[in-house]
Amino acid sequence: MTVPNAFPEIEPILSTTMADVVEEKLRTYFRDKGFSPGDALPKEVELAEALQVSRNVVREALSRLRMLGMIETKKRRGMILAEPDVLSGLERLLDPQLLGKGVMKQLFELRLVLEIGMGDLLFLRRKETDLQILQQIVEDELKAASHAERVECDIRFHSTLYRMTGNETLRRFQKLLVPMFQYIIENEAGPDGQTAVGAVSHAGLLAILRHGDPTSFREAMKKHLDPHFLFL
Amino acid sequence: MTVPNAFPEIEPILSTTMADVVEEKLRTYFRDKGFSPGDALPKEVELAEALQVSRNVVREALSRLRMLGMIETKKRRGMILAEPDVLSGLERLLDPQLLGKGVMKQLFELRLVLEIGMGDLLFLRRKETDLQILQQIVEDELKAASHAERVECDIRFHSTLYRMTGNETLRRFQKLLVPMFQYIIENEAGPDGQTAVGAVSHAGLLAILRHGDPTSFREAMKKHLDPHFLFL
Repeated sequence: MTVPNAFPEIEPILSTTMADVVEEKLRTYFRDKGFSPGDALPKEVELAEALQVSRNVVREALSRLRMLGMIETKKRRGMILAEPDVLSGLERLLDPQLLGKGVMKQLFELRLVLEIGMGDLLFLRRKETDLQILQQIVEDELKAASHAERVECDIRFHSTLYRMTGNETLRRFQKLLVPMFQYIIENEAGPDGQTAVGAVSHAGLLAILRHGDPTSFREAMKKHLDPHFLFL
Repeated sequence: MTVPNAFPEIEPILSTTMADVVEEKLRTYFRDKGFSPGDALPKEVELAEALQVSRNVVREALSRLRMLGMIETKKRRGMILAEPDVLSGLERLLDPQLLGKGVMKQLFELRLVLEIGMGDLLFLRRKETDLQILQQIVEDELKAASHAERVECDIRFHSTLYRMTGNETLRRFQKLLVPMFQYIIENEAGPDGQTAVGAVSHAGLLAILRHGDPTSFREAMKKHLDPHFLFL
């Protein structure tokens, strides 16, 4: 259990292991020596010597950086520094079984903020082919026979919007978030298992993406998401 | 160098090490066995036996999970599963020296989306004391004698807004992003080193936080950030 931090400016004191220390030392070492992605790195044994620590703990720390995609091992070239995947750590952590309700709620709020704020990117980059995909989803939703099918259409519609922003980090972030929100949907459902629907539908949002502007999109998306705001 | 993925649905094939495999196995094992944060975990030697791998590679994989805050070692209780810090991986990766310009630009766009979309949370949770802090920053900015001082006021103003959302994940995310954007500011500066200023000032945003509503805030923030949109 994580205790909420009453002094947000003071970082919590965590129990520090040798691997933590060496991992931090390695990252500082690479930064200070000016290594860039693509550069060959010293060998494990050389790093152990430079940092005056055992090879075992260097191996452990390197393994952490490898997990984050910060280093890669290439045939013939040995270890190189790599451009890490910014979402690699997050990917492992977004597990509803691990995260407390507090953090889950914060992530859900983040989703609302992103979808209301994404209008400008959408109008900058919308393509006719994507609007047609949204149109298809709206039609599928009308024909949906079950609650599960409607939820699936809802996820497809919103996922398409994230993709349409042309921002790959934003798109992947949303993809990681989707499985997190099952508990929110269950939480918000009434006694009949149904959830409230906003005053603007997916069809309404699509019409605005065709004929409106970022301002009207923002307002419409807020109205679309309004039932969720009641639970904040 | 990361090659852009032309087939976003197909995950890239990365060179997989034993530690990758065992790390994944451990995470699956904890999930399938229904471990929750706070639960005591089997010992390293027991995990090695259960997964039929060497203790060394289990130690390496556990070290990765410890880095992400997913496991902790407690006096007397041994290893326990912990609620991880969702931003712990990201914290290590947001390094302008490591990330390519493509990802940096995506993160900057994310910032614009967040600030335009945060109006609802701000009006839900604004406090008079915070509005007074913003007022002080606006006054400090008027008295600022140098470009550096103005940049500092700008960062303080926007950081305060993130804090005012009451969403700790959002606040910490922004704190991690701030150092990333130096290169953007330099990129956008004209030959005189100055950057363009939006049609709505910090004072304008503050007046809306006092007397306006989320809709007018969103529009004002868009105008405030407009110079950045020219570079997208």
